[in-house]
Amino acid sequence: MIRAAVVGATGYAGAELVRLLSGHPDVKLTMLTSRQFAGTSFAALYPSFNGRVDLVCQANDPDLIAENADVVFLALPHKVSMTLAPELISAGCRVVDLSADFRFHNRHAYEAHYQPHTCPDLLSEAVYGLTEVYGEDTKNARLIGNPGCYPTSVLLPLIPLVKENLIDPATLIADCKSGVSGAGREATAATHFCQVNESFKAYKVDGHRHTPEMEEKLSDAAGRPVRITFVPHLVPITRGMQSTLYAGLMPGTHAAQIRECLTDFYEGKPFVRLLPEKQWPDALSVRGSNFCDIAWFVDPDRGRVTLLSAIDNLVKGASGQAVQNMNRMFGFAETAGLSMVPWPL
Amino acid sequence: MIRAAVVGATGYAGAELVRLLSGHPDVKLTMLTSRQFAGTSFAALYPSFNGRVDLVCQANDPDLIAENADVVFLALPHKVSMTLAPELISAGCRVVDLSADFRFHNRHAYEAHYQPHTCPDLLSEAVYGLTEVYGEDTKNARLIGNPGCYPTSVLLPLIPLVKENLIDPATLIADCKSGVSGAGREATAATHFCQVNESFKAYKVDGHRHTPEMEEKLSDAAGRPVRITFVPHLVPITRGMQSTLYAGLMPGTHAAQIRECLTDFYEGKPFVRLLPEKQWPDALSVRGSNFCDIAWFVDPDRGRVTLLSAIDNLVKGASGQAVQNMNRMFGFAETAGLSMVPWPL
Amino acid sequence: MIRAAVVGATGYAGAELVRLLSGHPDVKLTMLTSRQFAGTSFAALYPSFNGRVDLVCQANDPDLIAENADVVFLALPHKVSMTLAPELISAGCRVVDLSADFRFHNRHAYEAHYQPHTCPDLLSEAVYGLTEVYGEDTKNARLIGNPGCYPTSVLLPLIPLVKENLIDPATLIADCKSGVSGAGREATAATHFCQVNESFKAYKVDGHRHTPEMEEKLSDAAGRPVRITFVPHLVPITRGMQSTLYAGLMPGTHAAQIRECLTDFYEGKPFVRLLPEKQWPDALSVRGSNFCDIAWFVDPDRGRVTLLSAIDNLVKGASGQAVQNMNRMFGFAETAGLSMVPWPL
Amino acid sequence: MIRAAVVGATGYAGAELVRLLSGHPDVKLTMLTSRQFAGTSFAALYPSFNGRVDLVCQANDPDLIAENADVVFLALPHKVSMTLAPELISAGCRVVDLSADFRFHNRHAYEAHYQPHTCPDLLSEAVYGLTEVYGEDTKNARLIGNPGCYPTSVLLPLIPLVKENLIDPATLIADCKSGVSGAGREATAATHFCQVNESFKAYKVDGHRHTPEMEEKLSDAAGRPVRITFVPHLVPITRGMQSTLYAGLMPGTHAAQIRECLTDFYEGKPFVRLLPEKQWPDALSVRGSNFCDIAWFVDPDRGRVTLLSAIDNLVKGASGQAVQNMNRMFGFAETAGLSMVPWPL
Repeated sequence: MIRAAVVGATGYAGAELVRLLSGHPDVKLTMLTSRQFAGTSFAALYPSFNGRVDLVCQANDPDLIAENADVVFLALPHKVSMTLAPELISAGCRVVDLSADFRFHNRHAYEAHYQPHTCPDLLSEAVYGLTEVYGEDTKNARLIGNPGCYPTSVLLPLIPLVKENLIDPATLIADCKSGVSGAGREATAATHFCQVNESFKAYKVDGHRHTPEMEEKLSDAAGRPVRITFVPHLVPITRGMQSTLYAGLMPGTHAAQIRECLTDFYEGKPFVRLLPEKQWPDALSVRGSNFCDIAWFVDPDRGRVTLLSAIDNLVKGASGQAVQNMNRMFGFAETAGLSMVPWPL
Repeated sequence: MIRAAVVGATGYAGAELVRLLSGHPDVKLTMLTSRQFAGTSFAALYPSFNGRVDLVCQANDPDLIAENADVVFLALPHKVSMTLAPELISAGCRVVDLSADFRFHNRHAYEAHYQPHTCPDLLSEAVYGLTEVYGEDTKNARLIGNPGCYPTSVLLPLIPLVKENLIDPATLIADCKSGVSGAGREATAATHFCQVNESFKAYKVDGHRHTPEMEEKLSDAAGRPVRITFVPHLVPITRGMQSTLYAGLMPGTHAAQIRECLTDFYEGKPFVRLLPEKQWPDALSVRGSNFCDIAWFVDPDRGRVTLLSAIDNLVKGASGQAVQNMNRMFGFAETAGLSMVPWPL
Repeated sequence: MIRAAVVGATGYAGAELVRLLSGHPDVKLTMLTSRQFAGTSFAALYPSFNGRVDLVCQANDPDLIAENADVVFLALPHKVSMTLAPELISAGCRVVDLSADFRFHNRHAYEAHYQPHTCPDLLSEAVYGLTEVYGEDTKNARLIGNPGCYPTSVLLPLIPLVKENLIDPATLIADCKSGVSGAGREATAATHFCQVNESFKAYKVDGHRHTPEMEEKLSDAAGRPVRITFVPHLVPITRGMQSTLYAGLMPGTHAAQIRECLTDFYEGKPFVRLLPEKQWPDALSVRGSNFCDIAWFVDPDRGRVTLLSAIDNLVKGASGQAVQNMNRMFGFAETAGLSMVPWPL
Repeated sequence: MIRAAVVGATGYAGAELVRLLSGHPDVKLTMLTSRQFAGTSFAALYPSFNGRVDLVCQANDPDLIAENADVVFLALPHKVSMTLAPELISAGCRVVDLSADFRFHNRHAYEAHYQPHTCPDLLSEAVYGLTEVYGEDTKNARLIGNPGCYPTSVLLPLIPLVKENLIDPATLIADCKSGVSGAGREATAATHFCQVNESFKAYKVDGHRHTPEMEEKLSDAAGRPVRITFVPHLVPITRGMQSTLYAGLMPGTHAAQIRECLTDFYEGKPFVRLLPEKQWPDALSVRGSNFCDIAWFVDPDRGRVTLLSAIDNLVKGASGQAVQNMNRMFGFAETAGLSMVPWPL
């Protein structure tokens, strides 16, 4: 059993980490922190945990965290993570960071869309935790930059095809739809029930910070610069993310090659389910689980392939993928603590 | 005052017609028909109408309908409409058909996706009731083929740009999201609350009958064959449709031209609202109204324009547009009976 | 045409007033005020109103309001109303106040649950705007205390039976369920989509300020002190309120008397619909309208009657009832501006 | 490891049994049956189970079931269960029946509300599986009549107080609210998304079959005939049941006695959580789990206690309680397979 701390436990990704780690066979949850709720019982904030988790939130003291934990999950806003990570790493902790602070290889790309980076050395050491793609690198990683939810849902279907040069990288479009939990726990006009319920809309059409994250990883896969048009939408559901991806077929690409490429790539990867023909991924069917469901349709008449994916934005899109990365870092079974069946309804 | 009949009044589009027509200043609702519920009070089926509409559903008898109505709305399944329309037209009624039976100019396109057409003469006479585009033709029409909900939401943003040759017709993609009322009143596994709630998914990714309808009208606008990739999705809301459209810019197209083209086209058209910059259409903001909200974002870096639209699928996407067409056919104010403000929440 | 101002127009009750008044045939909406959004276009806050209402929010200046309005609707928090009302009344405006400040006859009851009352003279003059019960008094009123949403839904079914002594006033229980808009526009943890969606819970079980309001009016009807147990619940819908009321039958009360009492009381009252037998009020069937649907079941075996009501909390429970009161104050048709059919879905 | 079969696996209670049993450490799921879907892969019906459960639905052949299972869960409609149970029992299976067929001790009460009973001997042997109350009897039971969802949520708070004579059994009222999954998987007008969404209503106000079930068990606890007024309501959520119960206090009953009574009764019972003061049970906080959350408020001024409970209707209200009963029947830990934390959101 290793000891785990969740820093920023009271946000939605944090609470989901507590849920997953509290049922993990190889982990003992030793410490939860919260700037806003230090001193408050975690179960008082999230009554679901009554009788299951009796930890009290503590302040973000890096020394105390390092003393109590072998692995630390940072479920913090961007910028805050990079102030805490170096000290935890120095103290010998392994760190999985759920913010954007360690997702980029290219410091300039990060700084163009976020802020100046205060520990570029760690940035270049950090491994991008898209486990199915960068899994080999995660094994010895001290620091994981856990992917954004949108990039996870977009990159898993696209990267194999981009790598194999089956689709035209100049034609990529990602139309993505997210449940409201993706907006976080803060109460704002945009998350008010009456604004969201019976609503459906796009947002940040003119630019979202997940675009450069996608573009860096797609370029990495293609071996040359790749751009993508990405439009996020808000769905009136709590959990779930569905992405519909459009790509022009490279001349000569056949449906069978698409199938073979995806099948080969995901062979033996336990959290990607390639759906049977004519079944389309539904956010409902992956809720609460670490699955990414993928399907596609090749339309030779229009020269395009449409790829579809569904994940739970809080699990495979955040906390579940973080646990999956921890499993690899510590040599546990990749599915340890993540084998739950999604609710049938 | 003219007399109106709604044939197939108990489906969702029918009930919405009853709502709109019962408040129309120039119309007296004289007759509602239903095969399944003949003899039943309409308000017993839809308690909302208690004390407001006291008609009893009658059988679909064309003679009786023609006797009682100057205008007849056919809110029937495909194929049933074309068996009723000829007799009503012969008897002197004007007809607005909400099925697909009179939407196509090209009989073969209709037959390829539906069934053999039994009155091709009327097909060639019928006017496609996308009022903002074909409005002049509706004035003297005896028979209107009222557009599908998806085509309405896709064609209104695209047609002006295709006509002006500002976007590349080889690059069109329509990612559309519909509320559940679009699936109709029939109780099926797909409309069960527990299947839809907390769900989000694409459907008919490999082909939907609204694609050829879009392609015929886009080709008409372009003056040459145009194809479009169209993927419909189901949103867990009752009413509303949001479409996100992607198109490559023709070489040299600037953002200002896009704006000017759309502004000119929709000048003086009362139901299209071009949104201020950085506001994106929300299904919530048009609910219950005949508005189509449109916005767009030109991305020169990626060579694309993203266009967004929102309508109420039951109003501008069906019954409201039908009333708008009737208004033009009879010379009423285009907004008569359609001036309601969408609910603020 | 009279001129109307809405003070506090940007809250939910305010926005609903704008919706209703903008379609009222006898009213010209001249002024909207907001402390927080003075200077902002109303339609920028509520995009539904784009192209329909082009007023800009102004500050709460009583002189300016009085200059521009014959009737003023105060959609303000408790306590703020009583600082504005006296000046407006003095300047000759008629006032409908949607806060609790003028709902109580008994100053001490108000002060026990709210705060010290700063204009007790107006308190004793104000008329409680439960139109179906106190309608005669509203005709010449200068100031209306518009009822709370819960009291409206509870009092309409109970008062006729209490007046006629058909139910035992010692046994009254009101189990009430409200949509989220009742909590107002403020973004709080309690109105966050993810807290409300898929949730159902009671709140303020140990005391809600609407209890003394109900008890004063029930006591008034009974001619002696009456108490009621009232438990509010939050339903994950935007609009709507459903109340289930339990009362012991007075010895000898028969089902026929209950029916006769309610039928007589609501004869000719246009906004109360007594449902046919075995139909139960549904929040869905009154949405957007000023209706209150009522039904009941007499259970002689258990010696009780169960009464059920449904209203739209924003309309009959707030802004619609306010317009209904204005209609009576100014001698307009009681249904003017309020004749819309609830949406069938 | 014992072998388990789920008969009627494709309904909602059946699918939830599959979810719970597929993660149970002491159980091997060997057989799923369905009359309608025999021959179909279970995961094709419920895509959540893709890659987790690969059983194919079989026909309801009692011999085959008995051959393959030590325990059989009957998730069947009323009446069908009692045709299958005798044969399975004879063949040596233990049976947990989720229908109403074995819930009543009093055959006449069953027959008055359902139909003639075809195996009265088993009826008198069957144990009512409200584990917290009848748990001792379940240990050696061959046949469990698993309680209805409404009775579970009503009886758990009331029985301790009725037993201790702290509340007046002539005053009991249960106002209960259920998520839509309680209506089952069948697609009907009543479960159509557009009928349920944004709706809230009572149903079967004039009589529901769960009333006699509650009355038999309350009478059993009181030692004399007890009646209760029960009104069910439908909430637009998928899972969850919240009940608000009203009871007159017996003369002299104090708040401390209520607390003590409930605390003593539920001491050591792992699935009942008595909430801290001023926290009220929320359907959201028990979702997916076997918990029943209970709270109460004693109002001496009105002489009443209000009790509140929340369960997941599919878990503690059906399949979870069934597994809990199986655990006791086979001597497993009571919480085996049921220790999941409810989702925090």
